[in-house]
Amino acid sequence: MKQSQMFIPTMKETPADAESASHRLLLRGGYIRQNASGVYSYLPLGYKVIKKIEAIIREEMDRTGSQELLMPAMQPAELWHETGRWDVYGPELMRLKDRHDRFFALGATGEELITSLVRDYLNTYKKLPMSLYQIQTKFRDEKRPRFGLLRGREFIMKDAYTFHDSAESLDEAYWAMYHAYCRIFERCGLTFRAVLADSGAIGGKDTHEFQALAEIGEDTIAYSDTSDYAANLEMASVLDQEEGKDGETLPLEKVEGKQEVDGNQAITAYWFQTRTERAVVFLKASDEINDVKVKNLLGTDLIESIAGSDEDVMHPEEGVRVFADNGLKHVARAAYYNQAENCTYFHLDPSRDLPIESFDDLRFIKEGDPSPDGKGAIKFARGIEIGQVFKLGTKYSEAMNATYLDMDGKAKPLIMGCYGIGISRTLSAVCEQYHDDEGMVWPKALAPFTIHLITVNPKKDDQLALSEQLYNQFVQEGYDVLWDDRKERPGVKFAESELIGCPVQVIVGKRASEQIVELAARKDAERVETSTAQLSDAVKQLLTTLA
Amino acid sequence: MKQSQMFIPTMKETPADAESASHRLLLRGGYIRQNASGVYSYLPLGYKVIKKIEAIIREEMDRTGSQELLMPAMQPAELWHETGRWDVYGPELMRLKDRHDRFFALGATGEELITSLVRDYLNTYKKLPMSLYQIQTKFRDEKRPRFGLLRGREFIMKDAYTFHDSAESLDEAYWAMYHAYCRIFERCGLTFRAVLADSGAIGGKDTHEFQALAEIGEDTIAYSDTSDYAANLEMASVLDQEEGKDGETLPLEKVEGKQEVDGNQAITAYWFQTRTERAVVFLKASDEINDVKVKNLLGTDLIESIAGSDEDVMHPEEGVRVFADNGLKHVARAAYYNQAENCTYFHLDPSRDLPIESFDDLRFIKEGDPSPDGKGAIKFARGIEIGQVFKLGTKYSEAMNATYLDMDGKAKPLIMGCYGIGISRTLSAVCEQYHDDEGMVWPKALAPFTIHLITVNPKKDDQLALSEQLYNQFVQEGYDVLWDDRKERPGVKFAESELIGCPVQVIVGKRASEQIVELAARKDAERVETSTAQLSDAVKQLLTTLA
Repeated sequence: MKQSQMFIPTMKETPADAESASHRLLLRGGYIRQNASGVYSYLPLGYKVIKKIEAIIREEMDRTGSQELLMPAMQPAELWHETGRWDVYGPELMRLKDRHDRFFALGATGEELITSLVRDYLNTYKKLPMSLYQIQTKFRDEKRPRFGLLRGREFIMKDAYTFHDSAESLDEAYWAMYHAYCRIFERCGLTFRAVLADSGAIGGKDTHEFQALAEIGEDTIAYSDTSDYAANLEMASVLDQEEGKDGETLPLEKVEGKQEVDGNQAITAYWFQTRTERAVVFLKASDEINDVKVKNLLGTDLIESIAGSDEDVMHPEEGVRVFADNGLKHVARAAYYNQAENCTYFHLDPSRDLPIESFDDLRFIKEGDPSPDGKGAIKFARGIEIGQVFKLGTKYSEAMNATYLDMDGKAKPLIMGCYGIGISRTLSAVCEQYHDDEGMVWPKALAPFTIHLITVNPKKDDQLALSEQLYNQFVQEGYDVLWDDRKERPGVKFAESELIGCPVQVIVGKRASEQIVELAARKDAERVETSTAQLSDAVKQLLTTLA
Repeated sequence: MKQSQMFIPTMKETPADAESASHRLLLRGGYIRQNASGVYSYLPLGYKVIKKIEAIIREEMDRTGSQELLMPAMQPAELWHETGRWDVYGPELMRLKDRHDRFFALGATGEELITSLVRDYLNTYKKLPMSLYQIQTKFRDEKRPRFGLLRGREFIMKDAYTFHDSAESLDEAYWAMYHAYCRIFERCGLTFRAVLADSGAIGGKDTHEFQALAEIGEDTIAYSDTSDYAANLEMASVLDQEEGKDGETLPLEKVEGKQEVDGNQAITAYWFQTRTERAVVFLKASDEINDVKVKNLLGTDLIESIAGSDEDVMHPEEGVRVFADNGLKHVARAAYYNQAENCTYFHLDPSRDLPIESFDDLRFIKEGDPSPDGKGAIKFARGIEIGQVFKLGTKYSEAMNATYLDMDGKAKPLIMGCYGIGISRTLSAVCEQYHDDEGMVWPKALAPFTIHLITVNPKKDDQLALSEQLYNQFVQEGYDVLWDDRKERPGVKFAESELIGCPVQVIVGKRASEQIVELAARKDAERVETSTAQLSDAVKQLLTTLA
């Protein structure tokens, strides 16, 4: 494609509100444009990359035997009422009324719709398992859209759904998808981790998130420095390796007032309120309470953590459940200031002096902690969530009465899995991982063009003629080529070439008449003079060295 | 793909509300499913066809030098206010509010959005012309969705926009698109006509519609039985070939009361009300008044045609403009009953007796009329509008202040063209043209699968083994193959194969052990026994005979 004819509205200035490299470079490079807060157009360059990601996804999804379909964005409210999510989903779900005052959700996710589509057809175990996917624009009215495509309100997503008659069949599909996702993100050139994650509001059981490592990421990943263990910070279990007490126990001591306490001995307490009961959780003051673990322990999804309370946690009211983090099991002499009594306890042996129902893993893991799989120590990294695989179980099929007849003719709810990839997010994540100060440095598989052919001075006949000859040659060799044939100053052209970031640059300049051009990788920008006779081989060779 | 694993929810019964063949067969064949009135899912079979249509469109659009992008469905209301269309568009435009009470249109068309995208960048003639297109889901809240995908509320569209600095440049792009559209619809196997059309509410000048011929079509096309002239019924000009009067004129006669009148002599009058004036139009009672032509004559887009009026049209008030259809120019002796006077005029010579400002072409063309290009006679056909090319001019660029600097440094509004293809409609149109009583009969280019391999009894080892061997062979040869490996009764399998309608059927039955199968074209269903050794050649040969 000739650059003079292409719509690539690059920007010299960095947009003020672009907080991340991907947002900044996609805007500056003319890849995307904002149309409203969190709402973007993919311009020709950006959409070329999106389509390459989509092609990889389609190939890998088809390999798993999943079939592509396309469901509508307009989802009748009735379906969302069936599962109760019309009320639960909140303002993130965009809603609209048609001319007959019927309500629709603008698809934020597709569980209801796909379940309604298959529920009459998948009526026997003979038709199971079944795997369906779509690549579709989704809508979520984020409270604070930010980082460009990373948290947008209209975005492109691949969502897949599988249907089964047994937990084993679901497990098989789950891991097939897991491995397909690994291949997809590998082919996109991403450094990522598949991490254990919390099932959250979508409802279900096992789930892994695929996190692309990036400083700008909104999630923290806890990973082992030696094994491939990785989990979302809130999901990483803390090993309870110690045995016995960490010292000699002594009789409990109670001293009036708030006394100075050794930081290593201090413990703290948190109150939790569920729909039906109250609980207090003790842990070391140096540890951080993990609400998700408390929530899982209490087995309810309506829970409130109450920051301060002046109740007497040492002598709680009847009915209050008391738990402690595993860490306290081994503490021989803790210290606690009880506000209700205004006194400080010393030599407090938690298992002896507190009415603890059980010790559990209730804190956040810390860097340096042993990895939960027993191999190596934990490190933290920031991640961008680009995909998720999820065992839904029967939550949707039960609510929506989607049943099949098993071998004995009994009606049972379909067992479901769902699997998502944020395609526009994947684009952003790739940008975060593949750029330098001057612009993008695309991996081969996703570059909008593989070769950027730059004519330094197209007013010179020899440069123009040679460029045209090379352009045709590259196209014939099957390369995606962007030819900068514009009558701009060389400085502008080179700067924009760095910004756009095609992997290979071929520069036709002063020595065109001698059939000599310059070849460079965008990555290091070291230019090597090459004769046109050797150019084809040199490009091929250079590409083998690039990601 | 094995049919046992595919989501093809065929239906035995014809859905009650499916009024057209395409709607009925797409539902029955498991190609689409309705999710709400006018809102459909494309199931795996249907989406395979959609993707084949999209691939053809992409190839042909890219050949014109147009660049693909993707704009959002959520379009800020502010843009629609700039052109005034927020108020004009009416209830067809779906609207929604975000959580901050900001209004958005759900894209029904993209003129505002694309103009806002390019207006800062296309600021000089040096960057023109520019051509951009997208394939995107569009939303229109049709009052009466019907015929399945033919008039839906959420549908897939290709929309393209071009920008120019001269009428000549627009003309060049217009005809390049026109020819690209011809190639697209030819490649889809459609019988269609490119017809002159009315520019309608979108505002602009020249326009052609691409109409696929089909009984179910909502538009009437007037075409020549000898040349390639074709126009929308309302746009077809009527030739004014006659010379002089059709007989002797006689003195005007006025007879009291409503008298019997010769049908060939009777004339009639219509009143029109514009924003600023009133007009009356005379024409032969046997002709039909064409509002579009009257509208174009009066040069306004706010016009009301008033059915009855008891005003005295023979002696209209001052200020009323009087026009007549060309047909009356040649009438020597007309007859008219003037209600206001309750008398009937005979021997009325319109040019002599009526205060006619001008004679113009103001009626609908009729079958048998001479073709406006002077070649042959007019015939009518019904058509489905599948595409339109449109010279927009400067309507949007002026309203939205999208200007470029010309060679003299003067700011001028961009000259625009827009070009649409209804992709889901194209699918329906193909169905209307390619089916029989049993189901679909797909043209090769769009068939979801080229070969339907049917194992009559997969419980027989020889049939299953041979089928598997042939399946692998066909896939290796590059065919899309659907393999019916299901344990269903042969009758069910054959009926569904007819319904699905793949062009070629290969049936593995009783003579499998002798390496003999049956080969048939879906079109005529005549089965020919073929040895597997000759099958590959036979399939290739058969395909050359098919559309």
